[in-house]
Amino acid sequence: MNNFRLLKTSGKARAGVLTTPHGVISTPVLCPVGSQGSVKTLTPQEVKDLGMDMILANTYHLYLRPGITIIEKLGGLHRFMDWDGAILTDSGGYQVFSLSRLRKVTDEGVTFRSHIDGSQYTLTPELAIQYQEALGADIIMVLDECVGHDESREKVYAAMVRTHHWAERCLEAHQRREQSLFAIIQGGTYPELRKQSVDTLTGLDFDGYAIGGLSIGEPKRVTFDITEQTASLLPPDKPRYLMGVGAPEDIVECVGRGIDIFDCALPTRVARNGALYTKTGRVDIMNASFREQREPIEADCTCYTCRHFSVAYLHHLFRSRELLAYRLATIHNLAFMSNLVRSIRTAILNGTFESFRQSFLASYKTTDEKTRLTQKKKWLEARSEIRTEED
Amino acid sequence: MNNFRLLKTSGKARAGVLTTPHGVISTPVLCPVGSQGSVKTLTPQEVKDLGMDMILANTYHLYLRPGITIIEKLGGLHRFMDWDGAILTDSGGYQVFSLSRLRKVTDEGVTFRSHIDGSQYTLTPELAIQYQEALGADIIMVLDECVGHDESREKVYAAMVRTHHWAERCLEAHQRREQSLFAIIQGGTYPELRKQSVDTLTGLDFDGYAIGGLSIGEPKRVTFDITEQTASLLPPDKPRYLMGVGAPEDIVECVGRGIDIFDCALPTRVARNGALYTKTGRVDIMNASFREQREPIEADCTCYTCRHFSVAYLHHLFRSRELLAYRLATIHNLAFMSNLVRSIRTAILNGTFESFRQSFLASYKTTDEKTRLTQKKKWLEARSEIRTEED
Repeated sequence: MNNFRLLKTSGKARAGVLTTPHGVISTPVLCPVGSQGSVKTLTPQEVKDLGMDMILANTYHLYLRPGITIIEKLGGLHRFMDWDGAILTDSGGYQVFSLSRLRKVTDEGVTFRSHIDGSQYTLTPELAIQYQEALGADIIMVLDECVGHDESREKVYAAMVRTHHWAERCLEAHQRREQSLFAIIQGGTYPELRKQSVDTLTGLDFDGYAIGGLSIGEPKRVTFDITEQTASLLPPDKPRYLMGVGAPEDIVECVGRGIDIFDCALPTRVARNGALYTKTGRVDIMNASFREQREPIEADCTCYTCRHFSVAYLHHLFRSRELLAYRLATIHNLAFMSNLVRSIRTAILNGTFESFRQSFLASYKTTDEKTRLTQKKKWLEARSEIRTEED
Repeated sequence: MNNFRLLKTSGKARAGVLTTPHGVISTPVLCPVGSQGSVKTLTPQEVKDLGMDMILANTYHLYLRPGITIIEKLGGLHRFMDWDGAILTDSGGYQVFSLSRLRKVTDEGVTFRSHIDGSQYTLTPELAIQYQEALGADIIMVLDECVGHDESREKVYAAMVRTHHWAERCLEAHQRREQSLFAIIQGGTYPELRKQSVDTLTGLDFDGYAIGGLSIGEPKRVTFDITEQTASLLPPDKPRYLMGVGAPEDIVECVGRGIDIFDCALPTRVARNGALYTKTGRVDIMNASFREQREPIEADCTCYTCRHFSVAYLHHLFRSRELLAYRLATIHNLAFMSNLVRSIRTAILNGTFESFRQSFLASYKTTDEKTRLTQKKKWLEARSEIRTEED
């Protein structure tokens, strides 16, 4: 099934249209993350009003809680969470790698312990497809084996080969063909392995191709280089999805390297930690300098938060751990991303992407490498919690 | 300034109209609590859309954080929190008693330590008025001395006398007369002290009268008896406000005893703890029996939550500690309260309040005394926290 149409390129940047059972999606597109069937703090209506057409949900999370069978009984994930836009589900491969404990990977599949209660489960390529079909997502992913960015070439190679075998089994198991199935290119930071992965997987009939195993701790230069090299090898008529990358500057850079689809928990996660996007970079709302600032976060932003509230009020809500704080920050950051992605697409359609890219990066102060890696490490090691005080 | 008009009585129940600088309010009225300048989880627009015309904010909380001066500089509390309905502020007397540490009460005022960082502050009747005037609330309260429900008659008497002296000083200090100033009747569970308090305070020119020092651990029968006795002594042409009472059954019972205004953190607080109001009583959304229930909380409820989501989804959100859970539950409980208060008013205007009361109480299973007191104690001793997991 060819569900993708490439409309225009500007350099390597691509503008296209992706057709799903739940709507036609303009690309490039960013999917906000709703791992457990909720984009944190927001109603589905708000997500839609923010211009988001597709969200990512996690099979791993939903399998553990409430369970795939319950969601299926209640009419599928769209109905369960009252979201009528498109849904992309990850297969669980990455979450088993990043979240669960005591995993054991064999050719058959992966055995892991739940990060919630330690109970043991087995996931196979066939089950991953079965679960995603039951959830009813518009785009589903093959089960892949993920390894750390600092693993030996030998281990990266073995995981890649296993991912290829699993991909074949996923394709075989895939029944509900109205759901698009994407393969995941692996191969770590080794260009020759990436090429081998592309060659193998593009030889099979997938609806789209994802680049996995990046943005997991490697230097950003490497993320960009591998993305560029891998994307250049992928067929132009299939959508390309870079998994887990979603900082504003990274989206600009990776659209410029040929990517169409992004998902990332970052815009919503950093929002809950009080980091708000502006055209000049991220600001920390907890900073004391904001205590009395009567302006909104961004003077010309038209999001609900900026139209109604001063920085001082947001600062107060964050200091006071008011639950509204996390909502208002999430709204602003998603509005920022939504505008960014729209501007990128307009620039591509106008053939002016490169000047857009330069102009954006000239004013947007990126988070430095050290801060970024520290944050990533901290997050991977121990999920932070929001604590709020009662009245 | 006479800002209250009594329209109709039905037994002791009263329907009236209260005029404030931020709108005309139909009574009986329930004020949701937004201690820190936010009705937890909701935007001001949502609070308004739920039919709420007046909210309660706490001078104590706002004084400690972000500080009265900052709110004043930013144009007052209405503008700070973007709420254009009416605001009632408590003076801080009750919070000093229930929240702060190491308080020392003298005739001059009260010295206490912040529950946030332990720093020391002094509050006097004059300062309480000055702060509330600076916040710009529509209805402000005198500073009162609160004592526990199980204190000796001697202590209750002394606190009452001091409250009377402070009330006089508050009246003296009150400058911005467009803001209504309410006195607070004290006297604990002693009817003769309540009478003395009413006699003293109604001899002064207040815009309304609150009944304080109830619902702080005494048996509910006592709450009702003292409310009824005190209300019966108050002038009919002034509004009557029962502080801190707001469970559905209590509102019905106390409207029936002559109360016009209520505030209570209960509907929103129990919502965040997963207790949802229905016509037959409170249900605990965490109960395993709800895991697969596809119906909404209440089939005929027209709130956003019930129109869009199954009980199973709410159950899942609560189990998963998703932030949206607290929002959806808060919306439902406030919608329930809003409908309840409107039905009460209609019944009064139709002269059928007593049959409404009987019919409501016959179907609504009230939370038993023991559970209620345990909850209250637990809450007073240690504020609970909401913890959420990250994506």
